[in-house]
Amino acid sequence: MKVLVIGGRGVIGSAVVQLLSAQHQVLVGGRHGGEVIVDMTDPASIEAMYQAHPDLDAVVVAAGHVPFKPLSQLSESDWLGGLNHKLMGQVRLVQIGARYLKPGAVFVLTSGLLEREHINGGSCASVVNAGLAAFVRSAAQELWGQARVNLVSPGVVAEDERGSAAFAGFTSISREQLAQRYLRAISQPLTGKVLEAFAEVTR
Amino acid sequence: MKVLVIGGRGVIGSAVVQLLSAQHQVLVGGRHGGEVIVDMTDPASIEAMYQAHPDLDAVVVAAGHVPFKPLSQLSESDWLGGLNHKLMGQVRLVQIGARYLKPGAVFVLTSGLLEREHINGGSCASVVNAGLAAFVRSAAQELWGQARVNLVSPGVVAEDERGSAAFAGFTSISREQLAQRYLRAISQPLTGKVLEAFAEVTR
Ligand SMILES: NC(=O)c1ccc[n+]([C@@H]2O[C@H](COP(=O)([O-])OP(=O)(O)OC[C@H]3O[C@@H](n4cnc5c(N)ncnc54)[C@H](OP(=O)(O)O)[C@@H]3O)[C@@H](O)[C@H]2O)c1
Ligand SMILES: NC(=O)c1ccc[n+]([C@@H]2O[C@H](COP(=O)([O-])OP(=O)(O)OC[C@H]3O[C@@H](n4cnc5c(N)ncnc54)[C@H](OP(=O)(O)O)[C@@H]3O)[C@@H](O)[C@H]2O)c1
Repeated sequence: MKVLVIGGRGVIGSAVVQLLSAQHQVLVGGRHGGEVIVDMTDPASIEAMYQAHPDLDAVVVAAGHVPFKPLSQLSESDWLGGLNHKLMGQVRLVQIGARYLKPGAVFVLTSGLLEREHINGGSCASVVNAGLAAFVRSAAQELWGQARVNLVSPGVVAEDERGSAAFAGFTSISREQLAQRYLRAISQPLTGKVLEAFAEVTR
Repeated sequence: MKVLVIGGRGVIGSAVVQLLSAQHQVLVGGRHGGEVIVDMTDPASIEAMYQAHPDLDAVVVAAGHVPFKPLSQLSESDWLGGLNHKLMGQVRLVQIGARYLKPGAVFVLTSGLLEREHINGGSCASVVNAGLAAFVRSAAQELWGQARVNLVSPGVVAEDERGSAAFAGFTSISREQLAQRYLRAISQPLTGKVLEAFAEVTR
């Protein structure tokens, strides 16, 4: 397969690139480096990318920014920034990609455990991640027979120190284990599935 | 209790107003009529409303617009319109309300069964409704001891003819049954709960 990994130089994406490269032809995408330059916040940039690469079999997205702030401090522009980047960026990559790619292409998006578990300062991430799960289920249904759409929902990544204080008490997952979920989402005949990669579910 | 029902002249809201009025002092809110004029898409309008009514014990939101269109036809402005109205409108009413209302106030928001069940043309509704569920769980946690936040997720309303073709094969619920969920979300000591009011869950 010819696989594009958007965010392929990031913490998660680089592990996905490493794992997939053993079996597939992998292109790295992002705004600032790699083989494919694309900005997921910009529909025109996405259109241009698919026009230049209509022969992709799979698109993995391991990118997307959301603000982390207490609810009382999240501004309108914080909210709209998170919705526009991590949520709509991935929605656009599927919606526009479905017009350009061959039938049978597969999209694998990335959300995160805050879809189901909540932390102080994580309300925008929770909204975005839950929205992505519903989008993947809904889009998979509408794109039946045309494209597959799956989602990986990572837990806290062991190698990523950036958010560790905010996630006190959560179990982490290694990048290598996480990368397996992306491989599975591509390789198995799944669509509309959320592959959760975290231990905790509070009941 | 003093209860504001935003959207209280709508299909669902009017049934909620009727039921709650038997036990509570109810104010009807909306852009064009009722006792409280407010536009949930406009933060300044929401601020002004809470400044004028800081003594509310409960805020019910039975309002919010999302576009219904096949995925291939949803434009950027369709998406942003739905996110700004039904999702961010309700987020704003909680976030700003938490600053103005007395401790112990309760918010009851409205999503819909497309959080969990998906129809052609419903992908924006699915994203918005799932986002609202995650927001309510997350905000309830952050606002612990300060305010309660719950969500009613209505099925197809029997008395509403507008979307019936798109929802072929779904069981409907009466406005009277649905209104009980809002009463329960206010009256019981619940927070962070999603009260689903539909029969179908596809497994
Ligand atoms: N790290 C974790 O513990 C964790 C846990 C749960 C979920 N997640 C989610 O997983 C995803 C990836 O996280 P990560 O920590 O691996 O990210 P990361 O290390 O910050 O890397 C993100 C990559 O995405 C690319 N990127 C950023 N904005 C872009 C845009 N507008 N268009 C195209 N590419 C863009 C960047 O490359 P360029 O600079 O070249 O654009 C960068 O290499 C995010 O959605 C994150 O929320 C992460
Ligand atoms: N009807 C159904 O079968 C169904 C099923 C599932 C979920 N839902 C959800 O339930 C909610 C209510 O639905 P409904 O069918 O009862 O709605 P509706 O009959 O269309 O009534 C909506 C009410 O909301 C008010 N409103 C609209 N925009 C507003 C704004 N920007 N700010 C403040 N108020 C506003 C309107 O009053 P003004 O004109 O005065 O502003 C109107 O009375 C919606 O979120 C809908 O998605 C409905």
